[in-house]
Amino acid sequence: MQTKEYINRIRSVSSQLAEQGSDLILITPGADLRYLTGYDALPLERLTCLAITKDAQATLIVPTLEKPAALTHDLDNLGIELIDFTETQNPYALLADFVGQRNKNSIENVLVSNLMWVEKAFKLQDAFGFKVGLAGDLIANLRSIKTDYEITALHEAGQAIDNVHQQMDKWLRPGRTEREVGRDIANAIIESGHSRVDFVIVASGPNGASPHHELSDRIINPGEPVVVDIGGTMPSGYCSDSTRMYVCGKAPEQFVQAYKVLQLAQAAASEAAVVGVTCEDVDATAREILTSANLGEFFIHRTGHGIGLETHEDPYIVKGNDLKIVNGHAFSIEPGFYIPGEYGARIEDILVCQNGKSVSTNNTSRDLVEL
Amino acid sequence: MQTKEYINRIRSVSSQLAEQGSDLILITPGADLRYLTGYDALPLERLTCLAITKDAQATLIVPTLEKPAALTHDLDNLGIELIDFTETQNPYALLADFVGQRNKNSIENVLVSNLMWVEKAFKLQDAFGFKVGLAGDLIANLRSIKTDYEITALHEAGQAIDNVHQQMDKWLRPGRTEREVGRDIANAIIESGHSRVDFVIVASGPNGASPHHELSDRIINPGEPVVVDIGGTMPSGYCSDSTRMYVCGKAPEQFVQAYKVLQLAQAAASEAAVVGVTCEDVDATAREILTSANLGEFFIHRTGHGIGLETHEDPYIVKGNDLKIVNGHAFSIEPGFYIPGEYGARIEDILVCQNGKSVSTNNTSRDLVEL
Repeated sequence: MQTKEYINRIRSVSSQLAEQGSDLILITPGADLRYLTGYDALPLERLTCLAITKDAQATLIVPTLEKPAALTHDLDNLGIELIDFTETQNPYALLADFVGQRNKNSIENVLVSNLMWVEKAFKLQDAFGFKVGLAGDLIANLRSIKTDYEITALHEAGQAIDNVHQQMDKWLRPGRTEREVGRDIANAIIESGHSRVDFVIVASGPNGASPHHELSDRIINPGEPVVVDIGGTMPSGYCSDSTRMYVCGKAPEQFVQAYKVLQLAQAAASEAAVVGVTCEDVDATAREILTSANLGEFFIHRTGHGIGLETHEDPYIVKGNDLKIVNGHAFSIEPGFYIPGEYGARIEDILVCQNGKSVSTNNTSRDLVEL
Repeated sequence: MQTKEYINRIRSVSSQLAEQGSDLILITPGADLRYLTGYDALPLERLTCLAITKDAQATLIVPTLEKPAALTHDLDNLGIELIDFTETQNPYALLADFVGQRNKNSIENVLVSNLMWVEKAFKLQDAFGFKVGLAGDLIANLRSIKTDYEITALHEAGQAIDNVHQQMDKWLRPGRTEREVGRDIANAIIESGHSRVDFVIVASGPNGASPHHELSDRIINPGEPVVVDIGGTMPSGYCSDSTRMYVCGKAPEQFVQAYKVLQLAQAAASEAAVVGVTCEDVDATAREILTSANLGEFFIHRTGHGIGLETHEDPYIVKGNDLKIVNGHAFSIEPGFYIPGEYGARIEDILVCQNGKSVSTNNTSRDLVEL
């Protein structure tokens, strides 16, 4: 990432603040902080907080022991002033005083990032002396529209996770447990270029009916559909997330028929996700196909979620979201069906909207893979 | 963990609520939820929330797609009513209505867990119609005093991480990068019985001067002190955390002399941590020894943190904390010194206060290990 891109992002946040009539935004460790500075600070009980005013004054407060880690980032060139505090100082008061002194205008309308811990939000509220509001869409909207750099990073993440799916025949065999297979997959996620494993779902037979089942000691049997939904974070900070379906041997005929409908639904929703179409219409496209095959009641989740520096972020592909897709949006298309006590199925790609239509970053076969 | 222990914990929370004059506490995914139910729910943008009233009525709301995962826990026997919501329902209103109807008394004084995302706290506040307060010490105090089951779990975690430190000669060699060594350590953390790697710090030479440096592509040279601070989470949910110092070959004489002082400081603080002594006095014990050898200014962090279901929790061993140590407290003792541009050093054990005095769960040699 270029320093210039971070500077532009911080400036955009300031402009948004001014436009909304807000004076200041406060951001604790997490994806928003990484988006604006590149700094992947630890989410500690100690305060680390970036403060940006509508005049584009930026201050980062960190615990003294985190100062060396913070300084590995190019804060000076980003125009960020760094202050630090020892274990016995009150960082909330320190930050409020510092920002107050630097700023000629009074600070009254203060926003905090939505995922801040409530205890930190309340302490900041006390220190600044004003009720804080949620940043809401302010940064989320910026983050949801990916730049060329970010689009490339998401395609790289897609290739890396595809590489893991392509090797599944090495690990997924009858007689092994989900956990054993999951451990091999986790190693491969790292070997394929990710810097962190975010999740490994290996859900065999009836376990597949729980969409967020992770790993268990259940032994995989021949003929059972297996949901493999895996993802990690790349050194770039961008996330991968892809689901494919496997079976050791032959799956039951009823499953195979339902799976064909799921493939149609996933393909149709992917094609539907073009510029100008609403997120809820994309959801409806997948849902109608499954519903027409009497599978609608078993499709118990939304069609997708945005992705970037977090696995789940805006835009959400869900009924009720009338946001229109624009170039730069990146999101999953992942319809599924879940039959309690029997099995589940899901097909998931990450797509990026480029030049008007959505392009998949995942390109392994979406057929049911027989091993 | 026995169902009985969870039931006792939920009852203790209710009693505490009644004692404090609070009506309800709301708990989102994280260590508090695991402590009270065993349920390691995903920290999603969708609401998962446990509500406990002062009359010990407990309700858990989860997204429909998480219901199968929630049901793998013994919620019925814990006396917890489970409700769920689809992707298009408003879970905040649903929960407030449900709790309101179940409860004869009016609900006015509502607490939320401190680490809840502020957006969820604000939405719950709107739904319940009352300003929420922080749970603060309410659950933290319960969690800080470990039962026999938890003490055993912490000793098991200690043995598992000791097992990794004991194999360091296999991986730590001049010419390898911190990242290469770190990857081997991460694998060993899993192989030694942890279910998750929480952090791997391999900080060679000058990188050691940054207490929370993680891994870099820096090549390890002979004669450089290397800080190895590692930890993971066991299948029990309890965390390990131990730091040892290594050097390939011989360390500089000045470092060796300083390290001897650090060993004295770590041992003295560990011995000082007996029932009735305050946390700040334990901190002072380590600090005075380092200060008397002119190393005080380089000891830039507190002496320790509590540990259990989270790596950092109460009690904190820090100046200003006049809490007295009691049986069942579990915490790190980890003094260090950090010389910018040269090196850093830290020795860290997890201790549990049992029968009046603190016992280390980590028992590998605290000498500087020459490889």
